[in-house]
Amino acid sequence: MQNPFFKNNGPFNFSDILNILNLDVDSNYQDQKITDIKDLLSSVKNEITFFHSKKYKDIAKNTKASFCITTDNLKNELNKDCKPIIVHNVLVSTSKVTEKFYPESINDNFDDTVNDIKDTKFKDIVKFGKNVLIGENVKFGDKCSIGHNTIIEKNVSIGNNCSIGSNTIIRNSFIKDNVKILDNCIIGKHGFGFFPNDNKNLRYPHIGIVIIQDNCEIGCGCTIDRGSMSNTIIGKNTYLDNQIHIAHNVKIGENSIIAGQVGIAGSSIIGNSVKIGGQAGISGHLKIGNNVEIAGGSGVIKSIADNSKVMGYPAKNIREFLKENQ
Amino acid sequence: MQNPFFKNNGPFNFSDILNILNLDVDSNYQDQKITDIKDLLSSVKNEITFFHSKKYKDIAKNTKASFCITTDNLKNELNKDCKPIIVHNVLVSTSKVTEKFYPESINDNFDDTVNDIKDTKFKDIVKFGKNVLIGENVKFGDKCSIGHNTIIEKNVSIGNNCSIGSNTIIRNSFIKDNVKILDNCIIGKHGFGFFPNDNKNLRYPHIGIVIIQDNCEIGCGCTIDRGSMSNTIIGKNTYLDNQIHIAHNVKIGENSIIAGQVGIAGSSIIGNSVKIGGQAGISGHLKIGNNVEIAGGSGVIKSIADNSKVMGYPAKNIREFLKENQ
Amino acid sequence: MQNPFFKNNGPFNFSDILNILNLDVDSNYQDQKITDIKDLLSSVKNEITFFHSKKYKDIAKNTKASFCITTDNLKNELNKDCKPIIVHNVLVSTSKVTEKFYPESINDNFDDTVNDIKDTKFKDIVKFGKNVLIGENVKFGDKCSIGHNTIIEKNVSIGNNCSIGSNTIIRNSFIKDNVKILDNCIIGKHGFGFFPNDNKNLRYPHIGIVIIQDNCEIGCGCTIDRGSMSNTIIGKNTYLDNQIHIAHNVKIGENSIIAGQVGIAGSSIIGNSVKIGGQAGISGHLKIGNNVEIAGGSGVIKSIADNSKVMGYPAKNIREFLKENQ
Repeated sequence: MQNPFFKNNGPFNFSDILNILNLDVDSNYQDQKITDIKDLLSSVKNEITFFHSKKYKDIAKNTKASFCITTDNLKNELNKDCKPIIVHNVLVSTSKVTEKFYPESINDNFDDTVNDIKDTKFKDIVKFGKNVLIGENVKFGDKCSIGHNTIIEKNVSIGNNCSIGSNTIIRNSFIKDNVKILDNCIIGKHGFGFFPNDNKNLRYPHIGIVIIQDNCEIGCGCTIDRGSMSNTIIGKNTYLDNQIHIAHNVKIGENSIIAGQVGIAGSSIIGNSVKIGGQAGISGHLKIGNNVEIAGGSGVIKSIADNSKVMGYPAKNIREFLKENQ
Repeated sequence: MQNPFFKNNGPFNFSDILNILNLDVDSNYQDQKITDIKDLLSSVKNEITFFHSKKYKDIAKNTKASFCITTDNLKNELNKDCKPIIVHNVLVSTSKVTEKFYPESINDNFDDTVNDIKDTKFKDIVKFGKNVLIGENVKFGDKCSIGHNTIIEKNVSIGNNCSIGSNTIIRNSFIKDNVKILDNCIIGKHGFGFFPNDNKNLRYPHIGIVIIQDNCEIGCGCTIDRGSMSNTIIGKNTYLDNQIHIAHNVKIGENSIIAGQVGIAGSSIIGNSVKIGGQAGISGHLKIGNNVEIAGGSGVIKSIADNSKVMGYPAKNIREFLKENQ
Repeated sequence: MQNPFFKNNGPFNFSDILNILNLDVDSNYQDQKITDIKDLLSSVKNEITFFHSKKYKDIAKNTKASFCITTDNLKNELNKDCKPIIVHNVLVSTSKVTEKFYPESINDNFDDTVNDIKDTKFKDIVKFGKNVLIGENVKFGDKCSIGHNTIIEKNVSIGNNCSIGSNTIIRNSFIKDNVKILDNCIIGKHGFGFFPNDNKNLRYPHIGIVIIQDNCEIGCGCTIDRGSMSNTIIGKNTYLDNQIHIAHNVKIGENSIIAGQVGIAGSSIIGNSVKIGGQAGISGHLKIGNNVEIAGGSGVIKSIADNSKVMGYPAKNIREFLKENQ
C-alpha cells in the first residue's frame, strides 16, 4: 500500500548495492538478487532493510529481510539470518539504495507525461474546465469535475463525485469519494526531507503517497506532501481551511477541523474529531489524541492526550494558559 | 447589497419550507408564498428569518418577517405578527432553507460559464495576457489589465484602472477603482463555514460577496473569502502584503496596512489606519479599533480599543509585553 | 549589480529633477545633467544621492555624488562638493526621483512581452511543459526544465541544470546552477514597500533583483520579493520548504534550512548554516548569525549572535525558554 505507484527498478545483485555504498564486494553473496527495500517489519526474504536506532531492536531481532543496512554497534541486535551491511550513516546509505530501486521517487520535476484531457479517455466521463492536463496512470470515478488549468499529474486515483478546483496540481495520491479540493493546492509533492550536507544536500526518496479519505474538503492554497517511507493521510470527513501545510507522513483522523494557515510538521499523528484553530503549528513526530482542541496560534511541541484543550506556545492546558495570561 | 449576485429561486410555498425541515405541514399557511430569507433586521413581510440567540431578542421583537426559524425557548421573544417555526437547531435549519433559495451559494465548483477573453466583448477594452478566462455577469471599467492564466469567474464587477496579476481567480466580488491585485490570489470563494456532523459535515450557504474599495493593493498568494450572510470588505487604500488570509465576513477599514502571512478569522472588524505586523493572527468576531498597531507574530484574542499598541500571545499592551519579556 | 535589469531613462537636467519635487529651479545648475540615482556610498560625479538619517553622516561626508536629496538639518553633514536639495521628506522625494530614472521598477503589472516558449529560441534547449511563457531579456543555461503554465517574465537569467515547477512566476531574478524551484512560487515581484498616505499610498521603486545561488531548493507556494535599493539573496545550498515568504532586501547565507510557513521581514540578514523551524517569524532589519537555530513558531525581534539556539516569542535562549515553560 505504501508504494503502489513508483516502479521498482529491481531486482539488483548484491554487488550492485555494495557498489552504490562504496563498499567492498563480498564474494559469498555478490550474485544474490535483492528484490526490494522495505522497513524492518515489512521486509521479507531476498529484500534489504535498514536499522539505525536501538529503539527498533525488537523488530530487528525478528526481521525477515535477507540483508540490513546498519552500523557496527547495532549489528548484533539483528536477526542472525539477516546479513548486516555495515555503514557509517544508515539513513544516508538507505536513501541511496532506495533511490536505486525507485529513481522516480526523488525526482519531482514537472510531469512530462501529461496530455490535454480532451485527448484522453476521460473527456466523456469527467466534467472539466479549460487547459486541464492529465498524466499517466490516472483514474477517475463517476461524476467528477476538474477546474481550469488544473494538472492531475501521474499516479493519481480519484473516486466518485469529487470536485477539484482550478490551478491545482495533484500527483501520487489516492483521493476517495465525495472529496472537494479547492483552487491553487499542491498535493503529493515530496516532503522537505534531505540529509544536510555542505555545498550539496542529499535528498532522500519519498516513496509514500497522499491518501485523502471520503467526504474531505481541502481549502485554497494548501500544500500536502506525500510520505517518505509511509503515507500522508487525511481521514474521512476532515475539513481543511485555506493556506494549510501538511508535511510528509502526517496522519490526520476523521471528522477533524483545521482552520486557516495551520502547519503540521512531518510524521505527526492527529486523532479523530480534533479542532485546530488558525495559524496553530504542530511540531514533528507528535501524537495528538482524539477530541483534542488546539487554540488558534498555539505552538504544540509535546504530544497531547485525548480530550485535552490546549493553548499557547508551548501549548498547555487552556484554562491554565488563560489564568496565567489574564 | 449583501446579495447582488446569487439568483433567488423563490418564492416557495410555506409547505415547501416545512418539507425541507421535515416538519408537519401547518394547514393554515401551507400555500402562503415566502419570497426570501434574510436576517431579523432586514427581512420584511412574506419573508422568512431566523432567531437563534437571546442576544438578538430586541431585534426579534420588532422583526417584520412573516416567519421565523427559532426554538421553543425563544419563540415568545418574537414579534407576535411573526409566525415561529420551531426547530431543534436553528442554524442548521436556516442553512437548509437558505440553500433552497440560493442553491448556487453553496456550490463553489469551478465556473463552467467562462470563455476565453478573446471571445468576449472585453477584448477591446481590457489589456490582457495569455489564457485569460471570463465568466458570466462580469463587468470592467476603463484601463484595466489582467495577467496570464487569470480567471475572472462569474459575478465580478471591476472598476476603472485596476491591475489584476497572473494566475489569480476572482468570483462574487466588487472591485472598485485603482485596485491592484497581484499574482496567485483567490478572491470570493466561500468561507470555512459548515456545521460539523460525523461522517458528513453540512456546509452552509455563503450569499455574501467580497468588496475591495478604491486604491487597495492585495499581495501575491492571498485568499479573501466571501461573506456568509454579510459581506467581506477591504476598505479604501488598505494594502495587504503576500500570503494573507482574510476569512468570511471580515471588514477592514481604510488606510490600513497588513504585513505578510497575517490571518484574520471570520467576522472580525478592523478599524481605519490599523497596522498589523507579519504573521499576526486575529481571532473571529473581534473588533479592532482605529489607529491600532498590532506587532508581528501577535495572537489577538480580545477586541482592542482605538489607538492601542499591542504585542504578544495573547496580545497585550506593547510596553507591558516588552517589559515582561526583557 | 544591484540594478542590471531596469532601464535607466536618464540623464535628466537638474531642472527636471527639481520640477518633480516641486522645488524652484536653481539657475546655476539647471542645465547640468544627472545620470543616475544611487546610495551615498555608490554614487559618483554627476549622480544624485539621498541622505535621511544622522547614522549615515560619515558616509555623507565622503559621498562623491554631485547632488543629494536631504533635509535642512542634515545638509551641513554633507560633503562640501555635493549640492544639497532640501526637501521635507527625503524618502518620498527619493522615491519620486528614482521612479523618474527607473519607471519600470514601480510597475509590476503582468508582463506583456511574453511569448509561448514554442515560439522562442529556447524551444530546443529547454525541456518544457504546456503553456510556458517567456518574457524579454531571459537567458537559460543547459539542461533546464520548466513546468506547465509557468511564466518566466522579463529580466531573468537561469543557469545550468535548473528545474522550475509548474504554475510558477519569476521576474527580475538571477537563478544560478542546479537550483530547484517547485510549483506555485512567485519570485521577483516588488516588496511591500510604500509610504503610507491617506487615500493613496505612494509606492517606492524596487530596483533590486532576487539572486538564488547554486544548489538551492525553493518549496511550493513560496514568495520571494526583489529588493528595493539592494538585492534579495538566497545563499548557496540553502533549502526552503513550502509557503515561505521572503521579503525585499533579505539576505540568507549558505547551507541554511528553513521549514514551512516561515516569514522573514524586509532587510534582515541571515547567516550560514542557520536552521529555522516551521512558522517562525523574523522581524525586519535584524542580523541572525551563523549556525543559529531558531525553533519552530518563534518570533525573533532582536538580532541573534552566532551559534545561538533560540525559541519563543520574543525568541530567547532555548534552554531558558524551556525551563520557564515546563
